[in-house]
Amino acid sequence: MRDTNRQFRLAKRPEGKPDRETFELAETDVPEPGPGEALVRTRYLSVDPYMRDRMSAGESYADPWDVGDPLRGGAVGEVVDSSGAEFEGGDIVVGNLEWADYTTAPGTELTAVDPDLAPISTALGVLGMPGRTAYFGVREVAEPKPGDTFVVTGAAGAVGSVAGQIAKLSGARVVGFAGSDEKVSFLEDDLGFDAGINYKATDDYRAALDEAAPDGVDAYFDNVGGPITDAVFTKLNVDARVAVCGQISLYNATERPTGPRKLPGLISTRARVEGFLVRDFAPRFGQATKRLGEWVASGEIEYRETITEGLENAPDAFLGLFEGENIGKQLVKVSDPDE
Amino acid sequence: MRDTNRQFRLAKRPEGKPDRETFELAETDVPEPGPGEALVRTRYLSVDPYMRDRMSAGESYADPWDVGDPLRGGAVGEVVDSSGAEFEGGDIVVGNLEWADYTTAPGTELTAVDPDLAPISTALGVLGMPGRTAYFGVREVAEPKPGDTFVVTGAAGAVGSVAGQIAKLSGARVVGFAGSDEKVSFLEDDLGFDAGINYKATDDYRAALDEAAPDGVDAYFDNVGGPITDAVFTKLNVDARVAVCGQISLYNATERPTGPRKLPGLISTRARVEGFLVRDFAPRFGQATKRLGEWVASGEIEYRETITEGLENAPDAFLGLFEGENIGKQLVKVSDPDE
Repeated sequence: MRDTNRQFRLAKRPEGKPDRETFELAETDVPEPGPGEALVRTRYLSVDPYMRDRMSAGESYADPWDVGDPLRGGAVGEVVDSSGAEFEGGDIVVGNLEWADYTTAPGTELTAVDPDLAPISTALGVLGMPGRTAYFGVREVAEPKPGDTFVVTGAAGAVGSVAGQIAKLSGARVVGFAGSDEKVSFLEDDLGFDAGINYKATDDYRAALDEAAPDGVDAYFDNVGGPITDAVFTKLNVDARVAVCGQISLYNATERPTGPRKLPGLISTRARVEGFLVRDFAPRFGQATKRLGEWVASGEIEYRETITEGLENAPDAFLGLFEGENIGKQLVKVSDPDE
Repeated sequence: MRDTNRQFRLAKRPEGKPDRETFELAETDVPEPGPGEALVRTRYLSVDPYMRDRMSAGESYADPWDVGDPLRGGAVGEVVDSSGAEFEGGDIVVGNLEWADYTTAPGTELTAVDPDLAPISTALGVLGMPGRTAYFGVREVAEPKPGDTFVVTGAAGAVGSVAGQIAKLSGARVVGFAGSDEKVSFLEDDLGFDAGINYKATDDYRAALDEAAPDGVDAYFDNVGGPITDAVFTKLNVDARVAVCGQISLYNATERPTGPRKLPGLISTRARVEGFLVRDFAPRFGQATKRLGEWVASGEIEYRETITEGLENAPDAFLGLFEGENIGKQLVKVSDPDE
């Protein structure tokens, strides 16, 4: 156990792409839990694209951080001290914690993780928020049917890799866009996608889709936006559904992004384009996690993690998301159980 | 009765905006009805924005015309001769007819119009395709609820004017964009809209909406597209619905139109954007026409027509649609009953 605490804070608001200057690592005392709070030692930290939004002052579904605020995100940790919380020392919990070695949090905002069910890191990936985002986005918004062609962007990422596999379980032909030949192999060989497209190897996404999705696109799960999405929209079939989950290619834009107008193409296709937030499905999180757990246990859903070692490297792990450096869920390993 | 026939044909495909050169008026014999066909004398001809699409060779939901083909569209006429059709001379019918004095058509493709119910021209407007488009687009796609703010573009046109009134009957606050102060008065004073915005009097559509739709936009019925739609999208509330009916501002574009990317804004709002075609609701046309007829009879829905006299002026009536010259349904009067 460390006798001091390290904590990342927002050093300044990024203009466009964040960099190391965006982050400041402060040394503090280990915090004391108040009544009803637990002191949690961070084991794994999740870095997610939506956090980019919280770094800006503008309107967003995620409240902006102020400069000097500690950064926060999904994290799995071990309860070290629980004054009035219903946890015991040694319990593994998941919650919205600081990017720090230690955080205090009200026991009501922590959820127990069963370490016998699956590796505890999965509570931040396939059995956590990204897995549930894929689950509800595919089943409730994109709605692939047997025989449909389903396309997903960011396909090798934490959400996309699960989304494609759930669509595959629905009987759809599944096509994924990813950013390297290694990722395409992961999609095709490990996850059972019907086709992967390395978007860094071509500029002609439309031609790539002509080959990978010869019957057009019935359901589209978009994590990326921009020119790939423009190409997918030109291939939408009648009654197509588009689930807008993320637009990572646009999050660092310094000017208001522009692109081809898509509304004219929606008329003849009668396509439906719908944004969604996983938190709207909170009453059904238990159901989703249970189902995902069964699929993982049976091997019907495979998952992969990219783990960066050390809290001090969390900014690099976060910045790497925008360079597509991760395969599967990007995590930061902050501590080991025996430390 | 004329002893020759005049017929408009597609003289050449327009590049961008069509003009008089797009049309050729040919003189032909009055056609002879074949078995099962009726000879119909045109009384009113409908000109509609979707016809622009049929003049181009590209993909569309409407099959393209070939150069030299007669132009066709919704028309009301009087049966002059019915070889084997189930109509009698003097019957008033509506169907998809040529832009001509006379057309032959299979009886199965004609629908009887009851001249005692309403003026026969309404079979092309409030009680015809435009009215039904408004009916299904509002009730099945945009779905305004009591207390919602509903915005419609092309609000003084054949579809928009009915759409706004149906939304008003649903208990929504109704705001319409139209292209002149006269049209805004029509919306506010004659149709009972809560606010009209003359989009030709301002470039700052967002500021106009701040005033006319202070609580944001819950349902949007879009006939126009382009910069007005861009502004409306910035005002969408959580769970907003967008019904994409038409995009008239883009139909004459010679380059692929571009604009601000809208998908990022759909995530936090969870908004749904959906294109629709009225023909998908064909099994329910009877129900819609009956309901619209009741609303017109009770005065709950008002309608207006802009009538251009003379078949020879049909091209001007069509071209005027893109200049916003009409209030309500734009028709061409081709013949009188006593001629």
